[in-house]
Parts: sequence; structure tokens; C-alpha cells
Amino acid sequence: MTANATFTLTILSSQHGIDLGNFQLNGAQLGLPEGVPIAVRQQCLVGGKQQGSRLLTLMVGDKEIRVVPTRGMAILDVQRDQVRFGWDSPVTEVVHPSFINQESAGGLGWLDGFNEMLVRCGYQWAGHPGEDRGEFLTLHGRIQNTPADEVILEVDLTPPYQVRLRGRVDEKRFKFTNFALHTCLSAAPDSPYLEVEDTLYNLASYDNTYQAIYHNNFGTPILQPGARLHITGKQIAPFNEYAGTGLETWMTMPAPTQDFDEMVFNIEALADEEGTAYALLENADQTQGIEVAYAVDTLPVLTLWKNVDTREQGYVVGIEPGTSYAYNRRHQWDLGLVPTIPAKTSKVFKVRFGLFTSSQEVTASRDNIVRVQGNQTLCVKTEPTVQL
Amino acid sequence: MTANATFTLTILSSQHGIDLGNFQLNGAQLGLPEGVPIAVRQQCLVGGKQQGSRLLTLMVGDKEIRVVPTRGMAILDVQRDQVRFGWDSPVTEVVHPSFINQESAGGLGWLDGFNEMLVRCGYQWAGHPGEDRGEFLTLHGRIQNTPADEVILEVDLTPPYQVRLRGRVDEKRFKFTNFALHTCLSAAPDSPYLEVEDTLYNLASYDNTYQAIYHNNFGTPILQPGARLHITGKQIAPFNEYAGTGLETWMTMPAPTQDFDEMVFNIEALADEEGTAYALLENADQTQGIEVAYAVDTLPVLTLWKNVDTREQGYVVGIEPGTSYAYNRRHQWDLGLVPTIPAKTSKVFKVRFGLFTSSQEVTASRDNIVRVQGNQTLCVKTEPTVQL
Amino acid sequence: MTANATFTLTILSSQHGIDLGNFQLNGAQLGLPEGVPIAVRQQCLVGGKQQGSRLLTLMVGDKEIRVVPTRGMAILDVQRDQVRFGWDSPVTEVVHPSFINQESAGGLGWLDGFNEMLVRCGYQWAGHPGEDRGEFLTLHGRIQNTPADEVILEVDLTPPYQVRLRGRVDEKRFKFTNFALHTCLSAAPDSPYLEVEDTLYNLASYDNTYQAIYHNNFGTPILQPGARLHITGKQIAPFNEYAGTGLETWMTMPAPTQDFDEMVFNIEALADEEGTAYALLENADQTQGIEVAYAVDTLPVLTLWKNVDTREQGYVVGIEPGTSYAYNRRHQWDLGLVPTIPAKTSKVFKVRFGLFTSSQEVTASRDNIVRVQGNQTLCVKTEPTVQL
Repeated sequence: MTANATFTLTILSSQHGIDLGNFQLNGAQLGLPEGVPIAVRQQCLVGGKQQGSRLLTLMVGDKEIRVVPTRGMAILDVQRDQVRFGWDSPVTEVVHPSFINQESAGGLGWLDGFNEMLVRCGYQWAGHPGEDRGEFLTLHGRIQNTPADEVILEVDLTPPYQVRLRGRVDEKRFKFTNFALHTCLSAAPDSPYLEVEDTLYNLASYDNTYQAIYHNNFGTPILQPGARLHITGKQIAPFNEYAGTGLETWMTMPAPTQDFDEMVFNIEALADEEGTAYALLENADQTQGIEVAYAVDTLPVLTLWKNVDTREQGYVVGIEPGTSYAYNRRHQWDLGLVPTIPAKTSKVFKVRFGLFTSSQEVTASRDNIVRVQGNQTLCVKTEPTVQL
Repeated sequence: MTANATFTLTILSSQHGIDLGNFQLNGAQLGLPEGVPIAVRQQCLVGGKQQGSRLLTLMVGDKEIRVVPTRGMAILDVQRDQVRFGWDSPVTEVVHPSFINQESAGGLGWLDGFNEMLVRCGYQWAGHPGEDRGEFLTLHGRIQNTPADEVILEVDLTPPYQVRLRGRVDEKRFKFTNFALHTCLSAAPDSPYLEVEDTLYNLASYDNTYQAIYHNNFGTPILQPGARLHITGKQIAPFNEYAGTGLETWMTMPAPTQDFDEMVFNIEALADEEGTAYALLENADQTQGIEVAYAVDTLPVLTLWKNVDTREQGYVVGIEPGTSYAYNRRHQWDLGLVPTIPAKTSKVFKVRFGLFTSSQEVTASRDNIVRVQGNQTLCVKTEPTVQL
Repeated sequence: MTANATFTLTILSSQHGIDLGNFQLNGAQLGLPEGVPIAVRQQCLVGGKQQGSRLLTLMVGDKEIRVVPTRGMAILDVQRDQVRFGWDSPVTEVVHPSFINQESAGGLGWLDGFNEMLVRCGYQWAGHPGEDRGEFLTLHGRIQNTPADEVILEVDLTPPYQVRLRGRVDEKRFKFTNFALHTCLSAAPDSPYLEVEDTLYNLASYDNTYQAIYHNNFGTPILQPGARLHITGKQIAPFNEYAGTGLETWMTMPAPTQDFDEMVFNIEALADEEGTAYALLENADQTQGIEVAYAVDTLPVLTLWKNVDTREQGYVVGIEPGTSYAYNRRHQWDLGLVPTIPAKTSKVFKVRFGLFTSSQEVTASRDNIVRVQGNQTLCVKTEPTVQL
């Protein structure tokens, strides 16, 4: 025990031919001291378009984190205490990628499986579908519909009993793309935070461009009439003319609204001294909230996706740090939002979720955002960033 | 037994994580009295593009009904006595939807799996591939290549020992489609009928358009030289110029004919006092036949698909009640054949197959068709319904 | 034993519902005399996009042959003695066809799974993606992403203990294609050869065109600076202008070369008295080599694919006998390279791999090529075969 203070379990490995399938392990089986509230469970889903998907549930203290290795290590949702972090998409299945045709419906096939709290967009490209430089790009890239090759669980057997779930997802196309994404989710029993640290490797001998958007989505109970967004930012601009009409009320959330559809706002992030920017969605009485903190060195912009339509349509707000906005890539070259990953190098993306279930936690987060923003004004641009 | 006169078995449920896989149950295991000839069997298919498909066989009296839950609850074929109802497609596998790319070949990828007796087309759209209102529609919609989420068997334990197979198939796309189709097949040991009653739910908070075609296909032995079609109808018109050249002989079936390809005829249905229209394909000596009866409130038109080419090419006739003809949707708005399903409502589609294996049954069906048609003339239009 | 001198094992059969999954059999279990070095093993691959793929390994004497039934009976690679025949693609998974969308990236989705030594291109079409006669053709056709329906192992229990692996792969589309490909790989313990004999059946009642390219790919250790190609040929021409700049050095192989990309050369094959043409890739010191011999009656042309870019990009040479060159089909009609397969007939394709691991074997092959070429000059055309 002294020699090896971490329990390590290979849940899936294409290289080693390991695939645990349905299993569950409690704290004792993980080698933890009695009373440490950590457990893990995996289910092989069945039926419909979720046949073949895996759902991995990490129980870490008061948090229950559901991860989908089959869909690029997405986070389906998180429950902390009685509060659910995630949303209710009309898509209720955990759709297996083999049922997704991203080229369908003019490149919108990605929407057939869209229902998670954390959806990665990227990494060869992200954003809206369409032609760019002779290439047809489908909505939000391929990573979310790519199953992980490797899933490894690590549980520290000493306080603070950190739990890490590592994944590897390959995004490859001969002659075009040779990316490997290493994901790491981590959480500890006594912390309200869930951290995501992803490393994108360009294994090729050529530089390549890339894009990433961390499409984090939150619905009820936090999203409700009177819920508010707080951010640290340098500038906000509407995505298009329609969003321009909602610019004055971008912070406040209405009830589910027929015909609202979506308003999207583009934000230039403002970071604290450690390079971290923040966004907080708090409920109406400020007793629950979701904070998204992100490292701006690789994720310099934030997309707010205010999709406060009816519940059946998906009542949801996206808080989405990215290399880029949600436009098709062809619009982002001039914005300087199509970065390059040099040959044989890597890029790290850090996103931390604060899963707040008390007014103290929410207030502390809001106070910090006010502190970071300081006396820097959030510049409001009324013109859309791009004239579509 | 008195309290619960129906045996119910969940064969597949994505919600409850149930997937029975390979199994079989005989009458005793179903709780039926001795001698009641009902049994059920499911096979998980293997090999080629059918890997992962499920084939569910219901033995109900003299009928053996093979259903494919994985392909939208399609009916592969039915055998009654020694007569097979179905056809011989060059596609011999029960193709799993993950191997189908409906976008391929200009939207014709659906053809890669086409071989069943009952193939549902719909429900967001049906008909030929092509652009409509800025959307590219693939052949005959998505439902047939969507696996069921739920399959439930019900067997009444008292006469007439009705057997019902219920399925649920979701057709969803975030922001676009939020449909759930509930299917029900039913049959009883002593009846020549197989009934299909489908309910399409629009779960969205918005009205949507929809289309449905029940693409029912029949080959040998009923289809043979001298086989004849009888219908109840107000009007018949050729689908295109080529079909116009075969308008005079639309009722009669030739031998498999090299270079015939297909002729398609559009029929406005004529219903009886209960709202049911009829079509009968009888063999040459009128000893076997397949009757398709359908409720015209939701299925007002009938497509006859006379594909009497060579056996290797698929010698088959389609008797296809629908909301619409087989044209691309763009041609059907003006025909009034793109109905709307209001938000949070449902539509019911009823199709009944008469599986006739005696001249008495065939004659009774033909007589009924004559009765329903009465002295209403079937108006023959020589011009194609749409100028393509 | 006298009555039945061949061991036969059905490994996969869609028709009979047989799927052996993971298994292995040694010589004794195959019924072979002690000391005959033959064994077989199958693994069901897991993880990432290889979930569901099968990998079948034949150990035949000093050869270990890895076959992928799930990918059209491809040969992943062969090891003889310590020499590997195959290549290192950036695509490292044995990608299951359900994860391939051949329509993606303008018809280049095939590249997402490209990593085998023997990749079949065809049979409805082969070559580069693009429109031809109103049809959009994806790169290299569909067969490689089609799982086999039937896999049968035959082991002769008497010398020379020939091992045959038979497969059947269906390529079908209602109204368009009704092909069945029967593949046969064979090898014997004491022979350096691996033979491929494929039979393509056109089951339709109509003639059809077809194309085939046997995309055989070889990297290190044989491919190295100073490795050389020898061929029997009537004529060589560059595929395009870029290849024209490398025409003088087409035979010699450089080290992995940044920005080389690929040069492609088109060769009209020259056959010996038995109708066999030859190509040999030998390493720099002529101690190892791969010979590709092919029957020119059905494979009249040879494509040399010199993709000597960096290792990470895929340092590889393709030696590819075909009905056709690698152009899109629209360019090949005028070249007479779109053959017809009459209704209900078959075509046989023969390719033999010489897996040479000694200078004697290499020298004998080279000498034979010199003999077959005789005093017939290889005509060098400086203009590309097709002006693209």
C-alpha cells in the first residue's frame, strides 16, 4: 500500500484487447479505506441507436458523474446532492457513433446524438457546417462521434482520494489528420469541482490547423426564469442579427419560450492572473450554479448559446470555451481563430466545472468573477462579429 | 390466470436495459393451454452486414411472421400454410442500419437493405431523393434504418389468443424532428389476417410536416404471369411517361420481363363506409392472394409499384398506401400530400394484410372490392400526376 | 483420414448462423501430424473504431498471415521469419466498416481505415472519388468496407499441407449491383508464396461494368533508401504532372522524404507465356523482397504508388495490379479500362505474393523478371496518361 498509493484499472484498451463491459466496483474493491464514498460502474447500453454504447458512472462523494467512452469521453451529466447538471435534449438515447452520419442533412447529422453536458467539438475543425477551402466541414467536427480506444481509471488511495478517468480518442484520416486526444476527468469526494484536462497530440510530421469548442450545456434546475449568467470578458458581440436583438438581456434567462430558438453571443475571454477565465450560470435565488472555468491560452473565446426555447425543443444554455466561435471555419481565418498545432507537438485544454449547490458556493464564484473583471469594462459590440 | 389473461414479455427496452437476444418460447412457456399453436423465437443474426440484426419469428397458428426490430419493426416475410408472402430481393442479408449510408449514391443508400415485405417509409419525409426547400432528402426517409428502442410481446391467454408485438422506434434530430413511432402487429391463430396499427407521436412543441408510405412488397408465388390486381379507387394515373405506356395493363402481371424495370401508378383511394380501402393481388388461378386494406383517413393514396423485371433483379409488386406518392417531397406540396402533425399530437396508420391461401378467401376479397367500388368509375388519367 | 484429407472449419456463416468469435486451434486440433507448423487464431477486436472487427491469424510454417474478414477479407500484414510485409499507416486501428462513411470529405472517407497490406478496391468501381455519368463515386469502391458473410478454413492434412481461407463478400444494391466476391487465400508451410484467387460473380441478369485494383502496400523493412522496383512492363507513364518530375527515378526508393507526398505511375503489364506479370520490390542489399505476380487477363495494368513521405505520414509503396488505373472512372472509359462482366458470369483475379527473405529468393525473382522482359523495351511516356 505504501509502495502503490493509486489503484489503476484498465477499462478499455484496443491495444491490449481489454474491454470490461458491464461491471461495478465499490470502495472496498477499489482498495479504499472504509467509508470513502467512491465507486464505479459501467453499463453496456442496449436498444435503439444506443446499442453498443458504454455508460460509465463515477460516484465520487456527493457527485455522480456519467461518462460516455463511446462518444469521445463525453460527460452525459453530473448529479451533485439532488442537483442535476446537464439538460434534457429531445434526443434521449446515448447514440452510438455507428448510427450517426455527420454528412446527413447538409452536415447536421451530429445533431442526432446531441444530448450531453460536455460535448467536445473538434479537433480538425469545429463550428457550423459548410464549405471551407474546398473541403466540406460537418457540424462541430468528428471527435464526439469517435469511440475511445483506451479508458483507464485511477483512484488515489490516500486523501484527498482523487479519482481520475483517462481516455484516448484517435482522430485520424490517412494523409489528412493524425491526432490523438488524451482526456482526463478528475474529481475528489470533498470537492465541488470536476476538472477536465485534455491534451491534443499532433502525431504527424506536418503542422496542422485545429479547432476546439467545449460545448457545455445546462438546463433545469439551474436554468430557470431569472437565472443569470456572469462572466469575465473583454468584449461581447452577437453571433448574428437575431442575437443582436437580445443583446441587452443576454445575462438573464427567461422561462421556456416558444419560438425563441437560439441566440448566440461571442465573448472575448478575460483571464485572471493565472490565465483562467470564468462563467457562472446561477439559478434565480442564487442557491445553485454551474461555474465553467477555462484556461485562455488555448481557449481564448467563449460562446454563449442561449437556447431557451420550449422544454420539448431543448431548454438549455451552452457555456462554451473554444479556440473559435461557432461559425463555419471559413469565417474564422480572418478572426485569427484557426490556430496551428505544429508537427509532433501537443496542446492542452483545461476546463473546470464548479458544481455549486449552496448559496455560499454560488456567491463565492460570483464574487470571484467580479474581482477578476475588476474595473475592466465588458465592451458590448452591437454588430455581429461576422456578417453572415 | 383469471386476473391476468395476457402474457407480456419485454424483449428489448433501452430504458430498462433489457435485451433478450437469442431465445425461444413455446406455447406452454407462454402459459397457453395445450394445443394452442403459438410460439416465439428470436435470433441474433451474424455475418456480413446483418451482424447485430435481430430476427423475431412469431408462429401464430398457420402463420409464421418474421419481424426485424433492428430495421424499424419491418416485416421480413410471412408464411401461411405453404405460401410465402414477401419477395426475393437481390439483397439477401437483413442489413443492420449501421452499414447503411442513406446519403450514398445520391441518396439511394436505402436500397442497400431493401428486401422486406413491409417496409415503412417516413416519417419526416418519404419518396424519392432530392432537394426540397433547401434540404436534401434521402430515399424514403429514415425510419426503416432505425432500430427499435422497445419491443414487447403480448399474448392473450384466452380465445382468440390474439398475439400482439409492440415496438417503439424514435426518429429524432435536435431542433428538427421529435417523433416516436409506436408500432403494433397483431394476429390470431385462426385468422388469415395480420394487422398493423402504427401511431406516430409528434413529441415536439411545434407542428411538423410528415409523410408515410407503407411499402408492402410481394413476389412469387402470388406474383406470377396472369396474376391480377384489384383495387378500390377513384382515380389512377401514371407516375411518369414510362408508366403511361403500361396504363392499359396495369392490373395484369407478366412473367419476369427483361428490361421492364418498373412502372409506378398513382391511385386515389376509395374507401368503404368504415373508411377502409382495398387492394388485392391474386395469383393466376385465383387460389392465393394478398389483400392490403388500409384506413384512408391518414393513408389517402396508394402507389402501385410494378417491378416485374427478372427474378434476379427483384420480381415484385408493391402495394403501398401512403400519405403521399413516391415523388420527392418537393412535388407533393401542390398535390396536398404533405400533411401536418400538430405539436404533441399523434396520427394512427392502419394496414391489414389478408394472407389468402384458398380460392374462397380470394373470391371473398375480390367480391368485397367489387362491392365497395360499386358503380363508382375508376377514372383513368393518361397524363402523369407530375411532369418530371 | 484417408477418406477426408482436408480439415474444414466454418468460421463465419450468415446463412447458417455461425460465428466462432474468439478461438484458436493448433496443429493437433486441426488433425495435422505432429510437427506440422500450422495453427489458426481469431480475435474479436475491441476499443475505438475497431470494436467488432475480427482478426484472423494463420500461422503456416514460417509465415504469420493476419486477415480481416470484417474488412472484405483484407490481409492486414504477413510476417515471414523476422520480416514484416505490410506498412505503418497513421491509422493504427482495424477500423470496423460501421465507423466508415465513404461519402465524407468529398468521397475520401475510405482513408479513415486504410492500413492493410492487401486492400481490395472495387468492384462496382475503383479509383479516385468524383462524378461519373451522373453518379458520385467514392474513393476505391465499397468492397473493403464490407464485412464477409462467410469465412471457411481448409487445411490439407497431407503434404504440402496447403492452407486455404475462403471468404464471401457481397456487394449489392437493389437495382444497381448484384455482385458476390469469393476470395481464396492459400499458403503452405514450406513455400514463400501467398496466393490470392478471387472470383467475382455478377449474379444479376444484366451485364454490368466493374473495376478492381489490388492495392498492395509495403513499407519497412523492405522499403528503405536504395530499395528498388523491378517490373515486367510494356509502358510506363506518369499519373500526373507531378509524377512526371520523378519519372527518371521511378525504380529507386529514397529515405522518408518530407513533402514528397506521392508519385503514381501507370504501367501496361507485360506477361510471360502463362499470362503472368511481375513486380518486385527489393531492399537495398537485395536480401529481402516482395514480389507481386498477377494474371494479366483480368488485371492488365499496374499502378505504382510511391508514397515515400515521412514515416508518420505513411512511408509506403503500392504495387497495384488492376483492371484500371487510379483515376476516377470517368477518365477510364476512353482508356478501355472499364470492363464489363456479363450477366450471370464471373471473373477471376489472381495475385501471388512472393515473401522473400533471402538473397537467393530475391535474385531468382529479379532474374525471372529480366527473363520475362527479355528484349522488350519498357516504353517510357513522359506525358501523363490523362490530362487532369
